[in-house]
Amino acid sequence: MPRRQDATSAVSAGRFSVACSDCGQRGEGASFRQCRDCRGGTAISYASMRPIALTGHARMWDFAGRLPVGDAANIVSLGEGGTPLLGSSADRNAALYFKNEGQNPTGSQKDRAMSVAVSVAKERRVSQIVVASTGSVGVSCAAYSAHAGIRCLIMVPAGTPVERLQPMMALGARVVEIDGTFEQIEAILASLDSRRWYQASTIMGMNCFQGEGPKTIAYEIAGQLGRVPDWVVVPIGGGGTLHGIWRGFVELVDLGSTAHVPRMVGVQARALNLLERLDLSRVPTADEVHAKAPDERTESVCRNLRHAVPPDWRGAVRAVRESGGLFCSVTDEQALDWQLRLGREEGIFCEPSSAVVGQAVADLRSRGIIEREQSVVAVITGSGFREVGILGAMNPRRCTATVGEAELERLLRAVQ
Amino acid sequence: MPRRQDATSAVSAGRFSVACSDCGQRGEGASFRQCRDCRGGTAISYASMRPIALTGHARMWDFAGRLPVGDAANIVSLGEGGTPLLGSSADRNAALYFKNEGQNPTGSQKDRAMSVAVSVAKERRVSQIVVASTGSVGVSCAAYSAHAGIRCLIMVPAGTPVERLQPMMALGARVVEIDGTFEQIEAILASLDSRRWYQASTIMGMNCFQGEGPKTIAYEIAGQLGRVPDWVVVPIGGGGTLHGIWRGFVELVDLGSTAHVPRMVGVQARALNLLERLDLSRVPTADEVHAKAPDERTESVCRNLRHAVPPDWRGAVRAVRESGGLFCSVTDEQALDWQLRLGREEGIFCEPSSAVVGQAVADLRSRGIIEREQSVVAVITGSGFREVGILGAMNPRRCTATVGEAELERLLRAVQ
Repeated sequence: MPRRQDATSAVSAGRFSVACSDCGQRGEGASFRQCRDCRGGTAISYASMRPIALTGHARMWDFAGRLPVGDAANIVSLGEGGTPLLGSSADRNAALYFKNEGQNPTGSQKDRAMSVAVSVAKERRVSQIVVASTGSVGVSCAAYSAHAGIRCLIMVPAGTPVERLQPMMALGARVVEIDGTFEQIEAILASLDSRRWYQASTIMGMNCFQGEGPKTIAYEIAGQLGRVPDWVVVPIGGGGTLHGIWRGFVELVDLGSTAHVPRMVGVQARALNLLERLDLSRVPTADEVHAKAPDERTESVCRNLRHAVPPDWRGAVRAVRESGGLFCSVTDEQALDWQLRLGREEGIFCEPSSAVVGQAVADLRSRGIIEREQSVVAVITGSGFREVGILGAMNPRRCTATVGEAELERLLRAVQ
Repeated sequence: MPRRQDATSAVSAGRFSVACSDCGQRGEGASFRQCRDCRGGTAISYASMRPIALTGHARMWDFAGRLPVGDAANIVSLGEGGTPLLGSSADRNAALYFKNEGQNPTGSQKDRAMSVAVSVAKERRVSQIVVASTGSVGVSCAAYSAHAGIRCLIMVPAGTPVERLQPMMALGARVVEIDGTFEQIEAILASLDSRRWYQASTIMGMNCFQGEGPKTIAYEIAGQLGRVPDWVVVPIGGGGTLHGIWRGFVELVDLGSTAHVPRMVGVQARALNLLERLDLSRVPTADEVHAKAPDERTESVCRNLRHAVPPDWRGAVRAVRESGGLFCSVTDEQALDWQLRLGREEGIFCEPSSAVVGQAVADLRSRGIIEREQSVVAVITGSGFREVGILGAMNPRRCTATVGEAELERLLRAVQ
């Protein structure tokens, strides 16, 4: 038998159980949304307590023993994970690395979550998947559903750029644009019968399984760097990715693979910087959080960070508090500026929602919070190719076909 | 020292030499374009004759001993290669695999060539790189040049969609649109002093080093599949990728790593099917080739296959003849149809220029040329995210925020 990269024949899947960490209710069986009220509280535990083997060449399903799929034959993989950890070209301290999640199958870190979510759907013999998305989750869910042969229905808020919807449709998904906000779509989904409608949401309270995917980012960073960095900086959309990466580092420590957990930084868009404005000296209540929330219609060029209240704020707050990290925020202007800086200086073309990590690292170093010699891994969550429309104002120089060496020289000089 | 994914500290680079395989002239030193007249004849040979170690987890620079960089410190890497080999979901024979090169750093197989070309530029202390491109090469060259800190000037034919140019600019490249054809741009580049202008063209006669990159696709396929497939199907743009992959398989045989070379299929756009129309019972002459060439302005939705005369036709013809393969072609309508089929059935969102391999495999099976039980690897050369504009006619359904289960059910049924 050929060895297939999609890993279905190469890995041994682990035994695991699901429970609500708050009320103790077991979540196995048809439904796993019982604890919707204590979002973020659902926990998956694994039978194996062996240390996780760290290497520089792992892909996500090499860690199948720490992912919630019972039978390896049900793994739905498009080759997610194994993304490069790039040493910064521009950083003089040689202590800054970029984990480029834009090289995942559909161009974002969400492919890890969706690979798990759709594998679980296949294991449960689900015939249709439904998901809410402003972009990344939708296209990822469409791709994995197609690969698994499962129907996919994606609900997007009105106003999502059509360049983000067309790839979903090209991947065979049914896309429905809803005249309402992301929050209103969430309310629709919460009202559906969860036994009939499998929801591949990346919100922990809607689907706890997918939340295990981002853990593998932590495993890979530790393997590629050969140690745990001092800081890990992550853009905050819903908050689930930051939370998941942190849990991955916690697992590594718990299993004896590494010695400590890095300090986690969550980066928000300035106009939506709810988490930065919280008092983190204690755990905030839901009322406090909602009282500080910005208007749901607040816009930002960082499309993937556009949540008035990040649905997984509990997990994100926990990760930041327990790791001794912090939240910060970046303006739209800075995000656009850093999109071009990361392109020009590092050769990484990312979306503005990811470029925020560049400004965040610069700010935190300037403020003396990240010290000069400390190592930092900044997670580039998504590729810039998925929203080229944002570059609309750029236009090339134009020349005639008689251009010669002198003219090329002038052009190079003119743009330096 | 941390282990960096960009491999500069992890590999040992090989010793190699460059010569014209036709006239024997040595190509080392400042220039490597002496044999521009016998294009495709330049050959690089390596000191090591050890078998190539094949694994399922290799990235490109794991094969540094077979790539033309003398000092590993000069390797410019963004994490290219190591792309997934996906077993087809839709193929009932379970003998069809897709090598998805769209997961390279800038979304195409050209990243392998550009990683080598820019590494050689760094090794030669080049301060500026110039390249002609209709899309993929330009954005890739921009990214690697930026990562290396080398200035990059890209010349594109007028009419190249701005969505393909903007990422190049976001990556810091200087882009000049030329009022002329790709062939006219080539003529400009050929007139430049090659000692002053390092050209990262993916044409063998312009830069023989980059041509070594695609070999690693063959190494990876053999490692991931655990054997050599019966057929390898590759879209033909300039022809260099097909030629390079074939040379990779030949090297594997020469070094004793594998036992045979697969039959190579080159797929062209129907309106530009020059190579399919050649009499391959003998080696065609340049005059014969040019006599059969279509008009230079011939259009195709397969943008990356739009060469009237594929510049590396000699290499492509040699690969197909010596491997017992063939050339075939696909209409624009079929390419667009297969873009959606590969999306819907496989979960792979690729550009039409790559989707041609789907139709090619179906045709060759239907004609009985590829037999039912024979294994086939189809190379998806580029991601669809880089030219979303092509999906312009697709628009989503629209609903109000009051949508419920019954309406969702109707929607799913309506689109089946």
